[in-house]
Amino acid sequence: MTSTLPAPDASAAARPRTVAEGDFKVADLSLAGFGRKEIQLAEHEMPGLMALRREYADAQPLAGARVTGSLHMTIQTAVLIETLVALGAEVRWASCNIFSTQDHAAAAVVVGPTGTPEAPAGVPVYAWKGETLAEYWWCTEQVLLWPDDSARGGPNMILDDGGDATLLVHKGAEFEKAGAVPSPETADSEEFAVILGVLQRSLTEDSQRWTRVAASIKGVTEETTTGVHRLYEMQNAGTLLFPAINVNDAVTKSKFDNKYGCRHSLIDGINRATDVLIGGKVAVVAGYGDVGKGCAESLRGQGARVIVTEVDPICALQAAMDGYQVATLEDVVETADIFITATGCFDVITNEHMARMKHQAIVGNIGHFDNEIDMAGLAKRDDVERINIKPQVDEWRFADGHSIIVLSEGRLLNLGNATGHPSFVMSNSFSNQTIAQIELFTKTDQYPLGVYTLPKHLDEKVARLHLDALGAKLTELSKEQAAYLGVPVEGPYKSEHYRY
Amino acid sequence: MTSTLPAPDASAAARPRTVAEGDFKVADLSLAGFGRKEIQLAEHEMPGLMALRREYADAQPLAGARVTGSLHMTIQTAVLIETLVALGAEVRWASCNIFSTQDHAAAAVVVGPTGTPEAPAGVPVYAWKGETLAEYWWCTEQVLLWPDDSARGGPNMILDDGGDATLLVHKGAEFEKAGAVPSPETADSEEFAVILGVLQRSLTEDSQRWTRVAASIKGVTEETTTGVHRLYEMQNAGTLLFPAINVNDAVTKSKFDNKYGCRHSLIDGINRATDVLIGGKVAVVAGYGDVGKGCAESLRGQGARVIVTEVDPICALQAAMDGYQVATLEDVVETADIFITATGCFDVITNEHMARMKHQAIVGNIGHFDNEIDMAGLAKRDDVERINIKPQVDEWRFADGHSIIVLSEGRLLNLGNATGHPSFVMSNSFSNQTIAQIELFTKTDQYPLGVYTLPKHLDEKVARLHLDALGAKLTELSKEQAAYLGVPVEGPYKSEHYRY
Amino acid sequence: MTSTLPAPDASAAARPRTVAEGDFKVADLSLAGFGRKEIQLAEHEMPGLMALRREYADAQPLAGARVTGSLHMTIQTAVLIETLVALGAEVRWASCNIFSTQDHAAAAVVVGPTGTPEAPAGVPVYAWKGETLAEYWWCTEQVLLWPDDSARGGPNMILDDGGDATLLVHKGAEFEKAGAVPSPETADSEEFAVILGVLQRSLTEDSQRWTRVAASIKGVTEETTTGVHRLYEMQNAGTLLFPAINVNDAVTKSKFDNKYGCRHSLIDGINRATDVLIGGKVAVVAGYGDVGKGCAESLRGQGARVIVTEVDPICALQAAMDGYQVATLEDVVETADIFITATGCFDVITNEHMARMKHQAIVGNIGHFDNEIDMAGLAKRDDVERINIKPQVDEWRFADGHSIIVLSEGRLLNLGNATGHPSFVMSNSFSNQTIAQIELFTKTDQYPLGVYTLPKHLDEKVARLHLDALGAKLTELSKEQAAYLGVPVEGPYKSEHYRY
Amino acid sequence: MTSTLPAPDASAAARPRTVAEGDFKVADLSLAGFGRKEIQLAEHEMPGLMALRREYADAQPLAGARVTGSLHMTIQTAVLIETLVALGAEVRWASCNIFSTQDHAAAAVVVGPTGTPEAPAGVPVYAWKGETLAEYWWCTEQVLLWPDDSARGGPNMILDDGGDATLLVHKGAEFEKAGAVPSPETADSEEFAVILGVLQRSLTEDSQRWTRVAASIKGVTEETTTGVHRLYEMQNAGTLLFPAINVNDAVTKSKFDNKYGCRHSLIDGINRATDVLIGGKVAVVAGYGDVGKGCAESLRGQGARVIVTEVDPICALQAAMDGYQVATLEDVVETADIFITATGCFDVITNEHMARMKHQAIVGNIGHFDNEIDMAGLAKRDDVERINIKPQVDEWRFADGHSIIVLSEGRLLNLGNATGHPSFVMSNSFSNQTIAQIELFTKTDQYPLGVYTLPKHLDEKVARLHLDALGAKLTELSKEQAAYLGVPVEGPYKSEHYRY
Repeated sequence: MTSTLPAPDASAAARPRTVAEGDFKVADLSLAGFGRKEIQLAEHEMPGLMALRREYADAQPLAGARVTGSLHMTIQTAVLIETLVALGAEVRWASCNIFSTQDHAAAAVVVGPTGTPEAPAGVPVYAWKGETLAEYWWCTEQVLLWPDDSARGGPNMILDDGGDATLLVHKGAEFEKAGAVPSPETADSEEFAVILGVLQRSLTEDSQRWTRVAASIKGVTEETTTGVHRLYEMQNAGTLLFPAINVNDAVTKSKFDNKYGCRHSLIDGINRATDVLIGGKVAVVAGYGDVGKGCAESLRGQGARVIVTEVDPICALQAAMDGYQVATLEDVVETADIFITATGCFDVITNEHMARMKHQAIVGNIGHFDNEIDMAGLAKRDDVERINIKPQVDEWRFADGHSIIVLSEGRLLNLGNATGHPSFVMSNSFSNQTIAQIELFTKTDQYPLGVYTLPKHLDEKVARLHLDALGAKLTELSKEQAAYLGVPVEGPYKSEHYRY
Repeated sequence: MTSTLPAPDASAAARPRTVAEGDFKVADLSLAGFGRKEIQLAEHEMPGLMALRREYADAQPLAGARVTGSLHMTIQTAVLIETLVALGAEVRWASCNIFSTQDHAAAAVVVGPTGTPEAPAGVPVYAWKGETLAEYWWCTEQVLLWPDDSARGGPNMILDDGGDATLLVHKGAEFEKAGAVPSPETADSEEFAVILGVLQRSLTEDSQRWTRVAASIKGVTEETTTGVHRLYEMQNAGTLLFPAINVNDAVTKSKFDNKYGCRHSLIDGINRATDVLIGGKVAVVAGYGDVGKGCAESLRGQGARVIVTEVDPICALQAAMDGYQVATLEDVVETADIFITATGCFDVITNEHMARMKHQAIVGNIGHFDNEIDMAGLAKRDDVERINIKPQVDEWRFADGHSIIVLSEGRLLNLGNATGHPSFVMSNSFSNQTIAQIELFTKTDQYPLGVYTLPKHLDEKVARLHLDALGAKLTELSKEQAAYLGVPVEGPYKSEHYRY
Repeated sequence: MTSTLPAPDASAAARPRTVAEGDFKVADLSLAGFGRKEIQLAEHEMPGLMALRREYADAQPLAGARVTGSLHMTIQTAVLIETLVALGAEVRWASCNIFSTQDHAAAAVVVGPTGTPEAPAGVPVYAWKGETLAEYWWCTEQVLLWPDDSARGGPNMILDDGGDATLLVHKGAEFEKAGAVPSPETADSEEFAVILGVLQRSLTEDSQRWTRVAASIKGVTEETTTGVHRLYEMQNAGTLLFPAINVNDAVTKSKFDNKYGCRHSLIDGINRATDVLIGGKVAVVAGYGDVGKGCAESLRGQGARVIVTEVDPICALQAAMDGYQVATLEDVVETADIFITATGCFDVITNEHMARMKHQAIVGNIGHFDNEIDMAGLAKRDDVERINIKPQVDEWRFADGHSIIVLSEGRLLNLGNATGHPSFVMSNSFSNQTIAQIELFTKTDQYPLGVYTLPKHLDEKVARLHLDALGAKLTELSKEQAAYLGVPVEGPYKSEHYRY
Repeated sequence: MTSTLPAPDASAAARPRTVAEGDFKVADLSLAGFGRKEIQLAEHEMPGLMALRREYADAQPLAGARVTGSLHMTIQTAVLIETLVALGAEVRWASCNIFSTQDHAAAAVVVGPTGTPEAPAGVPVYAWKGETLAEYWWCTEQVLLWPDDSARGGPNMILDDGGDATLLVHKGAEFEKAGAVPSPETADSEEFAVILGVLQRSLTEDSQRWTRVAASIKGVTEETTTGVHRLYEMQNAGTLLFPAINVNDAVTKSKFDNKYGCRHSLIDGINRATDVLIGGKVAVVAGYGDVGKGCAESLRGQGARVIVTEVDPICALQAAMDGYQVATLEDVVETADIFITATGCFDVITNEHMARMKHQAIVGNIGHFDNEIDMAGLAKRDDVERINIKPQVDEWRFADGHSIIVLSEGRLLNLGNATGHPSFVMSNSFSNQTIAQIELFTKTDQYPLGVYTLPKHLDEKVARLHLDALGAKLTELSKEQAAYLGVPVEGPYKSEHYRY
């Protein structure tokens, strides 16, 4: 252990915390009470996680697991963390986004269900709302370094969202093998320069740190598209260092998170940001994948007329068959009232588009990165002025007098203007995470180095755990019916390529 | 004028303000800038009012009108007030609810579009968020008393919502005629005792004040069901003192305000209050009038399964034909997740019902008064504890361990947990108000003492003013077609009993 | 009675029939078995009528009533007729449209539930599919003339749809008073010439026949807009000869018949006529009254994108708020796939419009008369050829090679291409008819000469009779709640101007 | 060629026909005119096939192909057949179901676009409505035997739906290799006994016929789940004799055919069969796969309240999230009005269920075989009587007096009571078929023995061919955007496991 760790000594190790000393902010553990209250409410809305707690209360399948988590530190994540703990795991947590931490959630997790702000008894969390990039990567480093790792080992599991924890381990081990870290000046982005800085220092301190960590990791479970993409790239390049489960492509993750989650949070974000009546408006949804499908349904449910733009002819045909007009943005940019990007692509709405929009058109992104809307291009224009209305809501006024309303600076509006996905949606995603952690940790032999999707019976299990809460009653196949269909009575029921 | 008035002298009269001195709070005019920004955004969403400003810019039909307004002092109301001013009226304003003022809206109206906090140039507003009953009725009194009324007369028009301004004038005149005000102790409610107190003092100060005010009023335009009900009662009892226009029953008011307004604001309120996923939940909507219709559509649009309870067999049949289960609350109280009252009745959800609900059931009211849900009965139970989660959201925990979530203490959740009706909806209602003010003020001869609804051609006009903003293009009848239908080319097009 | 009557003598009177001898067709009573089977199925779907049979089985409120009915002779009407009989009435029936008779329904009514084709024991019906105008008015005359009227009187009640029976009585009495019938050559339409011919002959035969009939009629209950319109005109002109109840404007008639009936039968008609996939198509609905609302919902439910055209700004605003594009026909005539008129106006789709439509555009009318679509103008064009595809479906091919598909020659497509309103919808309308007959026949004193709408409590009763069949359970007001609302516990619950 | 062939000589070969002489019925070619008219209308609704005709008009990729088709001989199939011919193929056709032939379609195909009934110039079709099993397999045999095959070879391609043509070839070759055909008495079904009979005779006539045919086949393209299942079984068992393309699992086939096709045809079938109002009814949909999803949407769009039963927890959760009640049939069998099976399983509705249903409950199947509803068990009950109402509609009356309405004797109601999938839906499926035929015929090297799904770019191509007809405009990726996403500008755009 090194002096940069905030709690090198035993007594401090017993004091979990959300922050570091020195240059870093200190979290306010007095928020823990409010956070705990919200955690209790959320637990009811996360029946999958609570069912897993009950199912595995005795077996403690994660006993011995030392889980490093890197995922938005919200109330829902708090329920996930405490589920991992309830299954026997030891956990350290960072957020995977500089803005996404809910400080009262972080505080409540640190304090723990039985602790107090004065005597916290929870989980070490390194996360707060509004980190700098330097702070962010310092936090990520902390959760990968365990106080007494020389005695009992560092982390042996990673739970990742976006792959930053996995990246740090892989890059660290790579540079340790090479014996040198490239200079931060050579980085092609500000963020990678920060990473190189962290690893330069680390190499100086301990030339085998990340190599040891990588060797101890039994596996990583990855939450999201971007992270999964990186994993497959490493697998293909032969650089992957430990097995991985792709949680992102479980049906109960991708379909629910994307479609039903966004159906909820899109209009929630628009409403909180603008208070504008959606009914009667013309709304353009760019992209008719699962996110776009949820968005279109959401807006139609409020009485908007929805126009879809699409690149993929199959999705376009689906949109048409669902009763939506399918047009190009060019053709409708001057007449629509609301523009939502849900593509995963970039420059879907350009600054030229925005210059042509109606006065007070609303522009927001619920797809992926903030480059879906050309915010950089907008900011560079000479003929436009930005007027902040309230947090995450800006009016951009053009020289000709008309203005547009941009939500969350082009970042995900359901996170920025609302509160992200509701607990019930996250319960599906996080039940997949928990089950994936159990799989990799307890069935190591079945998962040699590679990237796996969850077996379908586990996907179905996650769905099953959420039905009771909705009052849904499942029909059971008879033995004869199952035989007729050629499936086990208890599932799985569908082929791998079934599309739902 | 009396010493209780804050600005008896000429120089003070030029200084509009939101408050009185002495025992009363002083508003913070520094909020005016934020309010003005929001007013500008709202103007775009209130095309009806803005069209009326353009149409009557030259004619100034309200020149000479001295309008006393009593209606929720919100951003939307600010646009209404400034429309009345733009049409020539002099205006004084109070809110019609102790909680409903948006302080930044009040401040912006006081400062006015061209004024500054230091040199306000707007309209006198007596309203702030969180008035006491005493403050509330003092404010109502202030807006009915005009600084220099002896010289140029008091108010000659009332724009009312709920009828409180109208009530004060009528009761004042009644007691002046009787020569005495009953003792506040004889009042059957706390609020009426306050009113009697105000009138007792007033009688002492000036025994003909309200008689003079009543005589000067050309008419009142009334916004809401309750106020309209009082007006018809007075008309029937022969006690009505001046003509009235019932704005509430204009189609563009009642249908839009109730159905489309609540479709928007119901889920907005639930989302902001609870962040709970509505999709997949079972929601009970009590009442399938216009409000209930909007609520049911709103919840279904988010993927909830909606059950309707109804008393009226016609509305019940409509609900069934619209695909909703129609049940009694008794039958579903233990299985539903969300309960919304939209009836106008009382004790629709009793405390016994609430005791039987599922854990964390959500209970809210979007109908009328807070007695639709038996909050008083709930509070009196020995076996329940109230735990405030955040403003306007309470958990009520029963002794058996289960709890329910009550929104806005049983008051209107779309006002308490969200921001009420959006501007576009209010633009319909307020365009009716403005047109009704013009009617009564300029066509006095056509409206002898009585209660009137707006002529259908004006109702149609209000609709017409809102179509362009939605990109809707109207078809025009040819002369021959109009003759065939037996209607004028320019409307009105429907019989009085047409139901839309 | 005259020799033109088919059954002047007692023995023949016992032999009900659908037709006359001589020049007229004879119906095939062998169809009665199939008709009876369909009547039995329909009875289950007409719970309102069946409930009235049970309720009044003992009281026999129509005992002594001699009802002349003029209304489409369908299976549903058969259930109505047999309900009137079950309540004690004696009935004679004609259709109110030359094409609308279902011959198997007519046959079954003539045979009756207990009769046989050889020994019919039902009700005299003068109706068959495909009457000439001369036959039509002869039939109408027959049902107004009762075999032994000199002994026991002619009809004392009329149940009318479109007002033809009422018209014949009024015109007959008018000309008898004048002592002369105008020459048929003076008629402004072919149909009126036929009427004048009938009345000329009648005047010759019996100069007081219609005067006597008019005097004996206690009242008429009228089903439809056109008939009601005539009644109000006669009331205003002072020429109305007996009281009338306007059944058309009962909520359970107008809203259900128009909205829910057309929601069902529009797509049924399009499907049977064309077998074209509606999903993904662009459909224009002209008119957004109740019929248009039902049509738009119907098409959207099948995945079409619906565009509404409207003249009335209130209805247009409703369409926009319901999420439909509101455009003029001019703007979309070249791009839409399906055109439906639902206006009650004429020349809504002109032949010029049709010339501009896409190849194989589908054109149909569900509004009122066949002039909503300019069929006459289309037929007159030199550049178009009509190609019959199958009954009620024509291709009209233009010289430029493109063609359009016109349904039912521009007449009501839900009648022509499908089977009209389903039984459940008609059960609402016909329960209103039955109740209105009871009102006028048993409460003569309460209905002096004039035109009445059904009291709201009867409208509510009709709704109530249909709830059980849908599994809908009504909530009952407590006495206290009713008092609070100011309504009786048992209803009516709404004011007259309530819009539902 | 053998004497069983109806047209062994050259002159007869020029005379295509729908039937054989001798014991078999002769089709009425006078129906060809009506069929041709409907084919012309259908062509407009099948833009994918027509676009392929245009695209390949010059290239003639199927020149030299001798295609044996076994697929429902409907109007839509006629457009497919004539597309294959337009691309150069020689074709012989049979239906794949004894009831599914539309005789006017068969006649029109035989006559051909340019022929006359007297001088047919089309394609030989062996199919008529209402074949016996013996006739059916005789027809299947005929289309696999080509008049002059010794000179120029027999079929070299199969286009199959259900795999019957493929089965006959495989079984024939299998028994020829074994040198003997099992006795028909050993067959476990009546149908297989017929097949064995055909092959016994064939073996006697020519001991290498099927071996030669199998060797000449370049590949089969298979339309449906059952056929695809057989192909994979043969592949796994090592008995597959030629390559196969699984057309069934193309997105533009499975999703469109199942979901959008059934959304259209379910209510069409119910309406034509029963004329019952669907609005307000309670409908149970068994199964929430693509077919069930389409059915539920269809019924909801008509105002029914839909209850879903499901075995698969993921699909059940989707149903709940889409706002449907998820229950077991046991719980709702006594209260629902309409029951639709969409499962592919058997005994989903047992005869005991049917005995418990409400009076006049409607029961229909849109899933797969007629055993989804236990029709056999129903027919065996002592306490039930079957009363035919009209073709494909039966009332089953139980001894207790209640009855249910069963559609199409439990077979697919959209085929039996309506007209199956509309042309536009089939255009998607058949464009896949055509493209798959081109793939297998022209790229033989790329498809060694095995079962393949269509490459995604061809699936996308099919979608693309249908967008114009719906007025949908596709957005094009820029090169930069495509590079960012890592996909070609022209697609394919999604990974293989993408679920749409």
